[in-house]
Amino acid sequence: MTQTIAIGAYTDTDAQALTGELGALALPELAALAALPEDQRNGVRALAYKGHDPLGGAQMDLLPKLEVIANFGVGYDAIDVAAANARKVLVTNTPDVLTEDVADLAVALILTHAREVVPAAQYVLDGDWARGADLPLAHKVSGRRVGILGLGRIGQQIAQRMAAFNCPIHYWSRRPKDAPGWTWHDTPEALAANSDFLVIALVGGAETAGLVSAPVIAALPENAVVVNISRGSTVDEDALIAALEDGRIRGAALDVMLNEPNPNPRLLALPNVLLLPHIGSATVETRAEMGALQRRNITAVLAGQPAETPVNTGFGA
Amino acid sequence: MTQTIAIGAYTDTDAQALTGELGALALPELAALAALPEDQRNGVRALAYKGHDPLGGAQMDLLPKLEVIANFGVGYDAIDVAAANARKVLVTNTPDVLTEDVADLAVALILTHAREVVPAAQYVLDGDWARGADLPLAHKVSGRRVGILGLGRIGQQIAQRMAAFNCPIHYWSRRPKDAPGWTWHDTPEALAANSDFLVIALVGGAETAGLVSAPVIAALPENAVVVNISRGSTVDEDALIAALEDGRIRGAALDVMLNEPNPNPRLLALPNVLLLPHIGSATVETRAEMGALQRRNITAVLAGQPAETPVNTGFGA
Repeated sequence: MTQTIAIGAYTDTDAQALTGELGALALPELAALAALPEDQRNGVRALAYKGHDPLGGAQMDLLPKLEVIANFGVGYDAIDVAAANARKVLVTNTPDVLTEDVADLAVALILTHAREVVPAAQYVLDGDWARGADLPLAHKVSGRRVGILGLGRIGQQIAQRMAAFNCPIHYWSRRPKDAPGWTWHDTPEALAANSDFLVIALVGGAETAGLVSAPVIAALPENAVVVNISRGSTVDEDALIAALEDGRIRGAALDVMLNEPNPNPRLLALPNVLLLPHIGSATVETRAEMGALQRRNITAVLAGQPAETPVNTGFGA
Repeated sequence: MTQTIAIGAYTDTDAQALTGELGALALPELAALAALPEDQRNGVRALAYKGHDPLGGAQMDLLPKLEVIANFGVGYDAIDVAAANARKVLVTNTPDVLTEDVADLAVALILTHAREVVPAAQYVLDGDWARGADLPLAHKVSGRRVGILGLGRIGQQIAQRMAAFNCPIHYWSRRPKDAPGWTWHDTPEALAANSDFLVIALVGGAETAGLVSAPVIAALPENAVVVNISRGSTVDEDALIAALEDGRIRGAALDVMLNEPNPNPRLLALPNVLLLPHIGSATVETRAEMGALQRRNITAVLAGQPAETPVNTGFGA
């Protein structure tokens, strides 16, 4: 009897490990769960989840023996943890192993946007350089103020990197952290007012939805660039787009946005916006570690052992 | 009588300052010098130079009263300093003000190449993301070995930045530096063998021509990426291209190359190569500082004062 179901688009390596090592049944998406025969659903104890479709009580109730939802990714905002708590289902995620990659990508967004790397590369490829066409000057990064919204694991790694660019580090978090030399601000607005790059490193979910509000965006200096590597839900995207369209801020560099993978066409049309396809952790090395951690969490729970990286507690072993 | 000639493609701001403050005569390129009337050439005491065409004794002899060649840029390998010495002509450059920009661009090249930022941005713009097309995983940067070839001002700033990505720092320079925690290698080959990213931060000129030789390239590990922000002349480009075409190394990210602005078509054709159009210092902020420093050097020499950033010494005031 299949004890584990794997939902989502896994790499070949992960798919083989899930089906081979764990004997998992692979489903392409969450919606396919309801179509499984009841006796098969009744045997399922573990769900390996990779995706952003909402996973709530209704889906959990299709799997009455479910003990663990092992999320592939650090952000588990797609999973209704309260519903999992009510059903005594453990939720696990894959923190830490992706922290460096996401922090690296935040720096890549800052540098690529400011230094206009994408149009410069295109200028060479198109032969414009050889033809002597004009290429506008870009903007300096070092020494400019970097404001980090949310100084968790990823935010701290971003700050560490940008401090090495001789950039003053400002941050907002609910409480000041033990971070000598970095300047805490007590509101997101105050942070925005002191940020040449505003880097959003919040967790997703209801608590942070729209935290980068119209007033926060209005507080940004005119040379500011908004960088987001967390979740699109954290930003009032209409307010951001209006500021970009009006030229009230210099630009945005976004790895995440609302309605992925269908960005707002107004964002796509803006020349001062760099959009990436949610690739914060999309490296061979890190995805392999994320898959391995996801499987270790399942193996532990199925064996009656504590999970390695639980999100909620008091369930499982 | 015009005492100053400005050669090269200056921004409007710089051109206005050169002609307005210094009363300079602007020429588009070095070759235009010979066409000037002799009495005009005979009055010239200062040459503001911006370009990469060789400036040697023959050109200097067109300006018999020349006292200073003020180069726009830190690299003055286009200028024959021995010929300047023989004619007691001071050469100045613009160091320091561009160090951070060039170091930033080296990090941008590392991150952009490894994380495949340019194709990822194109994938969004082309609608491939929305269509659910495949996007290959990229490669992790943090934790990988960064080898810096030439630990001068720029090399040190690159090392400082990449150390903050939790990358072990290796370097080669003629002698070990006071750089705790960074590992010195006594040959470029030894450095290459210990570099996942080999970042070339050498000065240009005859001394470093071809220093990144075929044996150095052969010593690189197979996952290595070559990054160059110095001068194309430092690399045996045929050997590099052969290694890239054969897949013996992972890739190259080059802001400089031979025969700029006409890169070798074989480089342009390689998918694992990122080429930028020599934009190491190409920011509004830094170019303004470089122009100001170039003009201060000229003003000082014309007033009989010491230049701020001389390359050779014993001439002028």
